[in-house]
Amino acid sequence: MSEDIFSRFYGVIPAGGVGSRLWPLSRASAPKFLHDLTSSGSTLIRATYDRLCPVADERIMVVTGQAHRNAVLAQLPELVDLNLVLEPEPKDSAAAIGLAAAILYLRDPETIMGSFAADQVIEPVEVFQDAVREAVLTAATGKIVTIGIHPTHPSTGFGYIQTGELLGVQGAPSARGVEQFVEKPDEDTARQYLARGGFLWNAGMFVAPVALMLQHLKANEPALHDGLMSIALAWNTPERDEVMSRVWPGLPKIAIDYAVAEPAAAAGDVAVVPGVFNWDDVGDFAAIGRLNKAREEEGVTTLGESVRVYADQATGVVYGDRPRVVALIGIDDVIVVDTADALLVTTKEHAQRVKQTVQTLKDQGRVDLL
Amino acid sequence: MSEDIFSRFYGVIPAGGVGSRLWPLSRASAPKFLHDLTSSGSTLIRATYDRLCPVADERIMVVTGQAHRNAVLAQLPELVDLNLVLEPEPKDSAAAIGLAAAILYLRDPETIMGSFAADQVIEPVEVFQDAVREAVLTAATGKIVTIGIHPTHPSTGFGYIQTGELLGVQGAPSARGVEQFVEKPDEDTARQYLARGGFLWNAGMFVAPVALMLQHLKANEPALHDGLMSIALAWNTPERDEVMSRVWPGLPKIAIDYAVAEPAAAAGDVAVVPGVFNWDDVGDFAAIGRLNKAREEEGVTTLGESVRVYADQATGVVYGDRPRVVALIGIDDVIVVDTADALLVTTKEHAQRVKQTVQTLKDQGRVDLL
Repeated sequence: MSEDIFSRFYGVIPAGGVGSRLWPLSRASAPKFLHDLTSSGSTLIRATYDRLCPVADERIMVVTGQAHRNAVLAQLPELVDLNLVLEPEPKDSAAAIGLAAAILYLRDPETIMGSFAADQVIEPVEVFQDAVREAVLTAATGKIVTIGIHPTHPSTGFGYIQTGELLGVQGAPSARGVEQFVEKPDEDTARQYLARGGFLWNAGMFVAPVALMLQHLKANEPALHDGLMSIALAWNTPERDEVMSRVWPGLPKIAIDYAVAEPAAAAGDVAVVPGVFNWDDVGDFAAIGRLNKAREEEGVTTLGESVRVYADQATGVVYGDRPRVVALIGIDDVIVVDTADALLVTTKEHAQRVKQTVQTLKDQGRVDLL
Repeated sequence: MSEDIFSRFYGVIPAGGVGSRLWPLSRASAPKFLHDLTSSGSTLIRATYDRLCPVADERIMVVTGQAHRNAVLAQLPELVDLNLVLEPEPKDSAAAIGLAAAILYLRDPETIMGSFAADQVIEPVEVFQDAVREAVLTAATGKIVTIGIHPTHPSTGFGYIQTGELLGVQGAPSARGVEQFVEKPDEDTARQYLARGGFLWNAGMFVAPVALMLQHLKANEPALHDGLMSIALAWNTPERDEVMSRVWPGLPKIAIDYAVAEPAAAAGDVAVVPGVFNWDDVGDFAAIGRLNKAREEEGVTTLGESVRVYADQATGVVYGDRPRVVALIGIDDVIVVDTADALLVTTKEHAQRVKQTVQTLKDQGRVDLL
């Protein structure tokens, strides 16, 4: 029985988002998911694919921007054309995940999809895969299942999931109901969540029957649902590109949380499987320091094969993609990102502010740098 | 009478010293004096030359390394071959200034030379020129005259000159005797000097009859004196290069202060003219911030035509010689020096430590970067 269920599982990897807090390493032309940010030897998207394979076999679909087609295929040469969804322009997560759901639904309405962002770091992978398996079995009972992350600190950067009672699903002993999704809290509220317990980070991982996803999408965003369906109907035909380029630009921009997850939770259709693995969304350069401990030497983490760092009473993170010497003197927790056309110098404390700088560059029309 | 004296004056510009505290801007191949560090439009050596011209006319000799011949001539195209002394290797200031003295002595033993380093910043130039004129008139009475700088803070980076009584030289009302030269003091001693008064910074500016310079050099460093004389005798002959390359490498390395100034002071042969102009030896990148106030915008001083700086809650100095964007976020008093093969990130407070980094690179054999 459960063998049958797993054969219905299809992995979906939305690979969008530039990761502007990682500028100038992460660019519109080479976003976060195309980089190896953990010195593992794999880009984040390749690692995401490999992490899903033991559960999804090669039933994996990628949704990304048209501009990244070649880069993604270079990373995932096994990806077949029908499983590579190329967005003419970004339309937020409901359109990306919804289109994958619609295409998969028309192939097989019994499909259970699992959507996992291309730019997260997870280990151990076996623990993640066990959580996905629990989520698939729970989804098969007619639930949209999110995998929630055990909070390690009172983060104000993530939304939270308030968990409910254990559901007692066969093979999914940790699956629970969901009381509610809550928006990114202030720090006091985040502290209360951790003190009370029963709150998990929303990492945007959803495992659900495609039929149920589409049912909620149709109820909440009928225009989006219908547009995606018309693209999906053309997917396996010569009209695919024509329909895509005609319909996609008019679709509403909305996050999957609002379009599906929250209303579904209110309807009692959402469950959660706690993820007890280490999880990092590599949100800024401070995270890159944390994730590359093995590259740290006397307090300085160096990323990039050809850069050479000389530190004198200095600590921090240096990324360099060219053969240069970087000398750091008398400066702590510094972040230096040295690329061909842009250099960033900041500190771990201010790593989150990089996003504003990118916005400033955008406002000033320096799109060449973004 | 004094017109006669001034026509005997010859300016000498020793252009040596890499300025390793200004690495990686200042290099062995492009030392400090070849840069425009004040955004004046002139390199330091050109500004030094122009500052001397009103006193020395075009009677100016430059002593520099062989490697800098073309760069110096590009800066000073009016320099004639006989006035460009090229050192096969650095031999410290006594050899450089002593050779100039010897060459000038053989041209005219009545010459009064004035030696002024190529990498200092002085203004107003008219006040400097008045001090040089006082020094020339004082030198003509048979003195080695140093121009001492009024200390603006208890620096531990300079030697000091303890001044004596006014000498009452005609046309040089501020000329005084010298009690002694003192080595770079510790901070307490420097504070005492400033509190007591009568102490000036030794900026290495010497104005003296060449005959008197050579007399003291011969007394204290006879081998050096004789070697320099043998080179000077060949200067105006076809043997110049042969003698230079044979004799120079064997000369002792010693500073002019030890070889001439201090023993001459002990003999009562030294005078001082206080320089009441603004003086800076551009000792580190903090100085470059001070000297380029006009280039400061919201706390960030930017040097380099093509670099573009975006600062968000950041202050400091950025030098960039390439068309790059440098983004500074949440970091104060930072110094960023961005060159083709090396990048320095430090703070104003630690600007002096750059010298040690250069030494480390040297010790590790990275001469390509020096």
